[in-house]
Amino acid sequence: MRAPIKDFYAVIPAGGIGSRLWPLSRADAPKFLHDLTGSGQSLLRDTWDRLAPLTGPDRIAVVTGRAHRAAVEQQLPGIADKNVILESEPRESAAAIGLAAAILHRRDPDVIIGSFSADHVIRGTRVFEFAVRDAVEVARQGYIVTIGITPTEPAVGFGYIKQGGELVVEGAREAALVERFVEKPDLATAKSYIADRTYLWNAGMFIARADVLLAELALHQPALHAGLIELAEAWDDRDRRGPVVDRIWPGLPKIAIDYAIAEPAAERGRLAVVPGHFDWDDVGDFASLTKLILNGRKNDLAVLGPSARVLSDAATGILVSQTSRVISLVGVKDIVVVDTPDALLVTTIEHAQRVKGVVESLKLTGRGDVL
Amino acid sequence: MRAPIKDFYAVIPAGGIGSRLWPLSRADAPKFLHDLTGSGQSLLRDTWDRLAPLTGPDRIAVVTGRAHRAAVEQQLPGIADKNVILESEPRESAAAIGLAAAILHRRDPDVIIGSFSADHVIRGTRVFEFAVRDAVEVARQGYIVTIGITPTEPAVGFGYIKQGGELVVEGAREAALVERFVEKPDLATAKSYIADRTYLWNAGMFIARADVLLAELALHQPALHAGLIELAEAWDDRDRRGPVVDRIWPGLPKIAIDYAIAEPAAERGRLAVVPGHFDWDDVGDFASLTKLILNGRKNDLAVLGPSARVLSDAATGILVSQTSRVISLVGVKDIVVVDTPDALLVTTIEHAQRVKGVVESLKLTGRGDVL
Repeated sequence: MRAPIKDFYAVIPAGGIGSRLWPLSRADAPKFLHDLTGSGQSLLRDTWDRLAPLTGPDRIAVVTGRAHRAAVEQQLPGIADKNVILESEPRESAAAIGLAAAILHRRDPDVIIGSFSADHVIRGTRVFEFAVRDAVEVARQGYIVTIGITPTEPAVGFGYIKQGGELVVEGAREAALVERFVEKPDLATAKSYIADRTYLWNAGMFIARADVLLAELALHQPALHAGLIELAEAWDDRDRRGPVVDRIWPGLPKIAIDYAIAEPAAERGRLAVVPGHFDWDDVGDFASLTKLILNGRKNDLAVLGPSARVLSDAATGILVSQTSRVISLVGVKDIVVVDTPDALLVTTIEHAQRVKGVVESLKLTGRGDVL
Repeated sequence: MRAPIKDFYAVIPAGGIGSRLWPLSRADAPKFLHDLTGSGQSLLRDTWDRLAPLTGPDRIAVVTGRAHRAAVEQQLPGIADKNVILESEPRESAAAIGLAAAILHRRDPDVIIGSFSADHVIRGTRVFEFAVRDAVEVARQGYIVTIGITPTEPAVGFGYIKQGGELVVEGAREAALVERFVEKPDLATAKSYIADRTYLWNAGMFIARADVLLAELALHQPALHAGLIELAEAWDDRDRRGPVVDRIWPGLPKIAIDYAIAEPAAERGRLAVVPGHFDWDDVGDFASLTKLILNGRKNDLAVLGPSARVLSDAATGILVSQTSRVISLVGVKDIVVVDTPDALLVTTIEHAQRVKGVVESLKLTGRGDVL
């Protein structure tokens, strides 16, 4: 095992609820706190365990909401106080990652940071490590680097990255400039991307020197940059942090890091991509969760829930059981059943994307108690 | 409103669990204790209310298991002690109805009894009353009389009665001899029955003089008859009943009244049928329950459960909610979802008949706690 990268720091934004996984994921039990892989621990902990060999356990920061502080500390007993960066309210990924970058840059001006979602699933940890180490070498040269996943199928649920000219960087096996980002395509377009072989899945992983990231932010989002710098200056002063957060954080622009930094940096030729040859999934909805659990098995029922009492007769799809109830599924195909103490969802794999709409409807109809 | 029929006594066998309606119906909450029609009261109480104008409230006996005594008395606060006939264990319908006949015959040798299931649904109470009054007049002539329902569709879930020669009886508008009983047909046969117009649905209603019924029983099931007579002799003697029940009841033959009396009596030309022109359903499974609740509406979701918190998006079929959970059904067609505190069933209308198999499997796999 190689030693950790000494100037590298990981940032884990742990913010999203994962609405399309309702009622499993919800405000007080967001997706990153669940064990969706059967690993026996949460996705957040899986993420931590994947990163610790690259950074060492003292150099992983988590950016999360105040409400999740206790859960995060319980999941990550080794985490230092200074590495828990609490948001007073959600302000999207550019603010979350930008705040971490600004704080870490103030503590160590030469730091290289890497941002990795708290709720994605990766299989092939060694290959992941290779990709991150390569990305760090490219980042060292002043690029913002993303790891793009080599696609295994024409997925329509992910954005894609079009690779441009090759970059030759010492210590990195493969790297290229990013020609452009493309939004989720339709199936025909996705198929053409696969055939083309220069497209990778956008997995939302960004590795960069903190000073480079902040400079890009200053260029494209000056107001956000100014606010984050002011926050970072006060952050490590116990007396000053609170008032500055209260004054600045609620007014910061809400924007995803893809739009705030990655796309404009790509246009300027400042964005590089390192291909990641590992299995990756954002497990965005019950269709992808089913695929993940069945792992290639066809016509079977995926069951998530350690104490599930299931009687299944010719049923396929997914059953998530969070209660001790006996659940009988008879003759239902591609079904999605999510059984929790206060809410039950029944839909089909085909309609998995519509679950987000359910959450909106529940909000609008005064049933937010189960969100 | 006409006066009750003075020599008529109704018997309501309240025994069946209704396994194909699991987990709604179960051992400690059998079908007859549920409100399946939205009437606001149980099927048992509906049955009582339908019969009371024909018999008066003092002349309705219920034959049920010891476990259901409290529930029955709670549903029927007007019922006299002597009218609650308790079985120590289930022994099928010939024993249940035969015991009531023997007891009532001993109390009043000239009584005419009518047996009506506790868990069927009837709409058109006045037409029902006409049919029963006609049947009583035919029974007075010494026939065992069944009320056969005029079919509204080629149902494959019911048995049929083939009408034979017309019977002319004073006071009865329509009556015929029963030519034969036929078991549940396939669809083609059922269609031919409808076209034929001489077939009626077997609704399991029997009206007869108690002495006639007992005489038929003596002829075809002498052991059962002898046991029931001995039970009836001891029944109204508090000291003697217990020991006699313990000695005789467990050894009585288990046989349905259709096979014990109706079919052999039909062969001997002793069985008459009066057509019933009312809506009737035995609500045997979730498919028929759905039809009953939707009452002709197509592509809709039937919801049973007074406090159901449902969010349905393009769902059809049936939802039974016995909890306070929020239930969201998205894009599922002809679905059956039955949500109870300790068990959940998800199947489809098409597979409704297979629910009985679920109950068997649960028994065999040690999960009888939810039956």
